[in-house]
Amino acid sequence: MSAYQKLEAHFRRAAHLDDAVGMLHWDMSTMMPAGGATARAEQMATLRGIRHHLIASPETAELLAAATDNGASSGLDDWQRANLAEMRRDHTHAAAVEDDLIEALSKACSACEMVWREARPESDFAKVLPSLRTVLDLYRQVAAAKAEAFGCSLYEALLDQWEPGGKTATIDAIFDDLADFLPPFIDQALAAQAKRPAPIVPQGPFPAEQQKALATKLMGVLGFEFERGRLDVSFHPFCGGATDDVRITTRWDEADFVEGLMAVLHETGHALYELGLPGDWRHQPVGKARGMTLHESQSLLMEMQACRTHEFLSFAAPLIREAFGGSGPAFETENLYRHYTHVDRSFIRTEADEVTYPTHVILRYRLERSMIAGELDLADLPEAFNDGLEALLGIRPPDDRQGCLQDIHWYAGAWGYFPTYTLGAIAAAQFFGAAKRDDPAIVPGIATGDFAPLVGWLRAHVHGHGSKLPTDGLVEKATGLPLDPAVFKAHLAARYLD
Amino acid sequence: MSAYQKLEAHFRRAAHLDDAVGMLHWDMSTMMPAGGATARAEQMATLRGIRHHLIASPETAELLAAATDNGASSGLDDWQRANLAEMRRDHTHAAAVEDDLIEALSKACSACEMVWREARPESDFAKVLPSLRTVLDLYRQVAAAKAEAFGCSLYEALLDQWEPGGKTATIDAIFDDLADFLPPFIDQALAAQAKRPAPIVPQGPFPAEQQKALATKLMGVLGFEFERGRLDVSFHPFCGGATDDVRITTRWDEADFVEGLMAVLHETGHALYELGLPGDWRHQPVGKARGMTLHESQSLLMEMQACRTHEFLSFAAPLIREAFGGSGPAFETENLYRHYTHVDRSFIRTEADEVTYPTHVILRYRLERSMIAGELDLADLPEAFNDGLEALLGIRPPDDRQGCLQDIHWYAGAWGYFPTYTLGAIAAAQFFGAAKRDDPAIVPGIATGDFAPLVGWLRAHVHGHGSKLPTDGLVEKATGLPLDPAVFKAHLAARYLD
Repeated sequence: MSAYQKLEAHFRRAAHLDDAVGMLHWDMSTMMPAGGATARAEQMATLRGIRHHLIASPETAELLAAATDNGASSGLDDWQRANLAEMRRDHTHAAAVEDDLIEALSKACSACEMVWREARPESDFAKVLPSLRTVLDLYRQVAAAKAEAFGCSLYEALLDQWEPGGKTATIDAIFDDLADFLPPFIDQALAAQAKRPAPIVPQGPFPAEQQKALATKLMGVLGFEFERGRLDVSFHPFCGGATDDVRITTRWDEADFVEGLMAVLHETGHALYELGLPGDWRHQPVGKARGMTLHESQSLLMEMQACRTHEFLSFAAPLIREAFGGSGPAFETENLYRHYTHVDRSFIRTEADEVTYPTHVILRYRLERSMIAGELDLADLPEAFNDGLEALLGIRPPDDRQGCLQDIHWYAGAWGYFPTYTLGAIAAAQFFGAAKRDDPAIVPGIATGDFAPLVGWLRAHVHGHGSKLPTDGLVEKATGLPLDPAVFKAHLAARYLD
Repeated sequence: MSAYQKLEAHFRRAAHLDDAVGMLHWDMSTMMPAGGATARAEQMATLRGIRHHLIASPETAELLAAATDNGASSGLDDWQRANLAEMRRDHTHAAAVEDDLIEALSKACSACEMVWREARPESDFAKVLPSLRTVLDLYRQVAAAKAEAFGCSLYEALLDQWEPGGKTATIDAIFDDLADFLPPFIDQALAAQAKRPAPIVPQGPFPAEQQKALATKLMGVLGFEFERGRLDVSFHPFCGGATDDVRITTRWDEADFVEGLMAVLHETGHALYELGLPGDWRHQPVGKARGMTLHESQSLLMEMQACRTHEFLSFAAPLIREAFGGSGPAFETENLYRHYTHVDRSFIRTEADEVTYPTHVILRYRLERSMIAGELDLADLPEAFNDGLEALLGIRPPDDRQGCLQDIHWYAGAWGYFPTYTLGAIAAAQFFGAAKRDDPAIVPGIATGDFAPLVGWLRAHVHGHGSKLPTDGLVEKATGLPLDPAVFKAHLAARYLD
């Protein structure tokens, strides 16, 4: 076996471990009885530790060197070369950080998350501050080690974990543009909305079983393959699972089906990406999803670009009426559309509409950059958060529960993740625009429940590439433009100002 | 850290891997979509391979030597010494066999099981014979390697995987005794039964949801802790899962609740053993269940000794009537008792009553010993099976589907497992007899839905010992007798001849 072939075998084992962790995590969130939590954490930590050792090992380093040295990689094709590059990136992340630091960080994050779960409902930032300090201190050490290994800034080293190759210069330019654009745009959108009838609220109850039957039907319409996945219930919706076994979750609110249904279509977008990855490269780094920007682009493309539309809702409205035995104006297509495109200044990111959402993200991105750089002291985070939201969105959280305590990310250790939400929204607008241009059957398909043209385009231009291309390169190849907020802004203008 | 402490850390990792495999296996049997099967097999093989390397490693061998040599174990207490002995047993099993052979056997078993799944419904033994030959050949190599490492016979080396320390001389004596006892006893039991009214069949349908609600209630009565476990549906009932997260499964037949309900109580007996293992020794070899004889004794104690009784059924009958809205003679305690103690000569082991069941087991034990010893050629298995059942039970399978093709064990590679079913039935009778003697509150408790006295006795005399004692030692300590079929025979006589 060549060094490259040995690396493939090596990383295949790592992928099986990742799959196993994916399943254990899904089970923990959907099925596990409370008493299993401690043992489950140990199972997952053990598998992650084994995976880390495998990838960080000197043996992997030697194989990587041997596969690259002396033209050994000249016999490799494009996919194999891209695979080798992803292997190196994975190894660099793993090898950069000492085991002790990883373990300390992992424990600090678990401990901080536990405190946060109490502090958030009590709106008590002071309670979680000491734990969060520990997390940030350790995270900055991790960032420093990785920054040295990659030759980039601290923040970019963390960003690379979620968005490989992500650059702050690119994000700054995009987010500065949006931060100028959005405040006046939100005013305009709200003024336009005020001239339209207010949406009528469909009256429930909407039994969970009926919601699930409807959601399952629409997942099938979008192209979800139930022989390779499932839909279940968890406290927070997510898309997880393993190779050829993609599990999405949601939560049913029996008083209101509207957002729960859309959450399923959002997760279905994530799932279609996973299900459409190049089968020839399953279990190899190059066969994985490219990163969180593209992942979020696929969920937002389905949710925001394809499904919150007149076309899709004209198809879905009769199914919604049938599912719940609903009738009258509340269940008409145009009323549902007004629901699904309603704009509102609100405090909670996860409940925000697509117009105001980027303001929440830009704020968090700027804050976490300052914190990682050591420029913003954690004691000043609550006020900085509230000031920032007021400046961008024009409303000030009345307490930290609705301010800097609302999101789990910083407390559980997902630093550098936030920007991918809005980068994904921008990429989604570009992909959908390009797809419609390339195939005129896509929009009529959405209106008739035929998603095959759209999914076919995504398979060819996004999913099927796995991690072969960098995010920017893939976006540019598929849409003719690098990531650019112009298409997203045009989409917002067309939907919210008309 | 001492060598012993290092070993504890080592085996703790192995236990986490075992737990992870347990969860993946549970999910595979209950939740997994069909498309996930290939990737799931790879996940499980990867974890098992890592576990095997960890335990078989020279490092483990050196630590075992260091923990034993020069009186290093003199500072250990009873539990630690027993733990060390279990570690050594585990290591000996793992280290005895070359990786190549383990992998070849694993693949051969998977392949053979696939062919068997087709051959069984077609009753086509010839179809599966070549695959079964491969499995047996490899299994005999494994047995030879382990027999040399342990200094025992080939069959005992395989038996030790399921029933540590099991001896064929003991089993032969017990099974010869039963093989003499049962044929005339079955005649007598059937004659006695013929004088009683035939059981009236309760008429369904019995919706799965109602059956589940009833089963859940009765699991709670027996002492199942739902904060540390679940009940789900799978094709074959089993008890699996992980530490502090014990998952049992069953299958609901909407036309007949009788056997499905008892299957749940059987699996609950397994689960109570797992949930009652010594918490101080969780994740250590000595903290595990002792072996399959004791495991089966716990399920059969609940099912056969405690629940198929007038006492339990007088408690359960009103709950059964309430669950299904049933009434009339079919739902009376005595009619249910006649159902639950009905004796019948039948071909299928898993459907057999407790009187005829041992004949199925004795036959399989004798056949697999001959096959492992190379005395019975596989081509002659169908006829030997049919001859043997006819001799022991007086009926001859009309085809191999109801003969030697009915059980998965040989085809999937569980050689040496069969005897534990009947050894467990014998131990169950002894335990229940001793428990009743020790605590007069046990039988009245069963009649009123208070299983605390019984479960308390089992915790103290069986569950809480983990693997500290050998099976025989534990049985003798708890009941005053080594494994002895006399109590089981007396139980059968009392129940079926009166």
